Amino acid sequence: MSLLATTIAQIGPPDQNARTAARERQDQLTKPQGSLGRLEQVSIQLAAITGQARPRINHPAVVVMAADHGIARQGVSAFPPEVTPQMVLNFLAGGAAINVLARHARAQVVVVDVGVACDLPPHPDLRVHKLGYGTADFSQTPAMSREQAQAALEVGITVAHDLVAHGVDMLATGDMGIGNTTASSAIVAAISGRPAAEVTGRGTGLDNHALQRKMDLISGALARHQPNPQDGLDVLAKVGGFEIGGLAGVMLGAASRRVPVVVDGFISGAAAMIACTLAPTAQPYLIAAHRSVEQGHQAVFGHLDLDPLLDLNLRLGEGTGAALGIALCQAACKILDEMATFGEAGVAAKA
Amino acid sequence: MSLLATTIAQIGPPDQNARTAARERQDQLTKPQGSLGRLEQVSIQLAAITGQARPRINHPAVVVMAADHGIARQGVSAFPPEVTPQMVLNFLAGGAAINVLARHARAQVVVVDVGVACDLPPHPDLRVHKLGYGTADFSQTPAMSREQAQAALEVGITVAHDLVAHGVDMLATGDMGIGNTTASSAIVAAISGRPAAEVTGRGTGLDNHALQRKMDLISGALARHQPNPQDGLDVLAKVGGFEIGGLAGVMLGAASRRVPVVVDGFISGAAAMIACTLAPTAQPYLIAAHRSVEQGHQAVFGHLDLDPLLDLNLRLGEGTGAALGIALCQAACKILDEMATFGEAGVAAKA
Repeated sequence: MSLLATTIAQIGPPDQNARTAARERQDQLTKPQGSLGRLEQVSIQLAAITGQARPRINHPAVVVMAADHGIARQGVSAFPPEVTPQMVLNFLAGGAAINVLARHARAQVVVVDVGVACDLPPHPDLRVHKLGYGTADFSQTPAMSREQAQAALEVGITVAHDLVAHGVDMLATGDMGIGNTTASSAIVAAISGRPAAEVTGRGTGLDNHALQRKMDLISGALARHQPNPQDGLDVLAKVGGFEIGGLAGVMLGAASRRVPVVVDGFISGAAAMIACTLAPTAQPYLIAAHRSVEQGHQAVFGHLDLDPLLDLNLRLGEGTGAALGIALCQAACKILDEMATFGEAGVAAKA
Repeated sequence: MSLLATTIAQIGPPDQNARTAARERQDQLTKPQGSLGRLEQVSIQLAAITGQARPRINHPAVVVMAADHGIARQGVSAFPPEVTPQMVLNFLAGGAAINVLARHARAQVVVVDVGVACDLPPHPDLRVHKLGYGTADFSQTPAMSREQAQAALEVGITVAHDLVAHGVDMLATGDMGIGNTTASSAIVAAISGRPAAEVTGRGTGLDNHALQRKMDLISGALARHQPNPQDGLDVLAKVGGFEIGGLAGVMLGAASRRVPVVVDGFISGAAAMIACTLAPTAQPYLIAAHRSVEQGHQAVFGHLDLDPLLDLNLRLGEGTGAALGIALCQAACKILDEMATFGEAGVAAKA
């Protein structure tokens, strides 16, 4: 069996005993039951994921997958394609938004080149698993072969398994790739069955004319390639991206190890749709960090039945929303673990 | 002049030069302009508040004001009044939700007894500024005298000024007082002019019958006492609470020292309405942490023109939402201060 098939087969259901134990403890803590809302829910979900009644998150990591997109040559982004490698260097130098927010959450940043369109200088924090120098332009041909799509997923699985083996106990996803909101909108349209116009947004800042062109390119590509919405590999190969496949692989790899995954914004959401099309059993391991400004994000949440923690009008990607989400998950775990019970504190319960 | 009048007179406008400098820097950082949404806005607001183009938050403190309410004898809470002092002891022992979330944000917790209905044992972390053993039952008589209302505000001002003098650079508000959602709904109804039924919620968990009784008590008290909505001291005296006055004072004291205030949930929101009725100039110094489950909170945001950062279905109080808000404000400042500019990172700007 392939690594992909083995990994999917390893994803088990969340632990109901740990879930019940966490819920019972939440109800004994010195606060009105349910009064910490989403924090309580997240803590209970994390208990079920990890199988621990009082989970802790001590070593979170943000995996930023970077790759280029042939479709970027069609002028679908406000930024030129050379920004992809430039931003990777910025990540490695520690000057990007994800570096700042990961430091704030005390999370490690792992940068993976899955298909940047040039060779990058070696760096101790850069993992190179290059599947090509960018995808093909999917307005003309499929973005990649089915074999490349599987390889992209397996890069993500390998990275996730390696990090977990080194003690990482929460993964978060981030992306870099000029043109990747176009691929993501195409994925979301293909899998959700919604029209491109409904799930395509301005990305890094398109004007109305360029937005219309982006929608037309996506509609045209979907009509031409007819991706099978039941087949995540087919969708990824025809209209996806290397980094999107890599992020879907991170989600599958984490779920197979009972490690929670904080899903960043729209690009990570498209990756989650690929992951859950391949393995619906991965869904309970996902925590949606935030609702992005990007138009199609709501369709992702609807399709995956996810409810994002934050709504801060972010639209940067890189894992920035996920880094903020990590901190909220840590807070949720600390509430469950550190608060006193009514009995311990000598506080009268509800009349 | 009184401390209250002096403090109000000291509140100046935000610093437009620092605001402009922060906005210009945000636009040069390596991300599409505006792509970090609310984080960018908050960083710019904090620059304007502090007068620093690149503000940092190194020493935040959550001030938890505790007091009892005569109205609690009318059965308006799901918890008995003795929970107020029990929870204060829980705060001092470090076992409450606010302790956990303040530690997570590396914020100090300062507990102030402004009017708990019993004497508490001395503790190094407890400040005692007791104005009474709980307020009077405002369904019968005004909750307190006008002199007590002013004294409550001045307790908060004194605490805020003292903390700022000791290096605290961000204040957050928290409350403890069984019965205080009833006082808060009465304040919000009085100042906003909305009917009690529209701004009264279930607090710690009332059933339908008890909720109706709570609404009737508030409507009756407002009809009986006729608080003047233009006069914050009058509203506070007639239907408020000692801790609510104290929190309004913290806001005025912080604003007078150009220190930002993170406003917790519904009770803190009612305090903000008192503060801004007395000093509309305090509004720019307030950051609303979260949208609570409590029914009347939306009326607070509408009246004060505030937009909360978080929406996590919280309804605990104590400053728990504010502690989470502190961490977001710190993240916003770090983005502004630590990210590389396009020039520094050698990244191409928007085409």
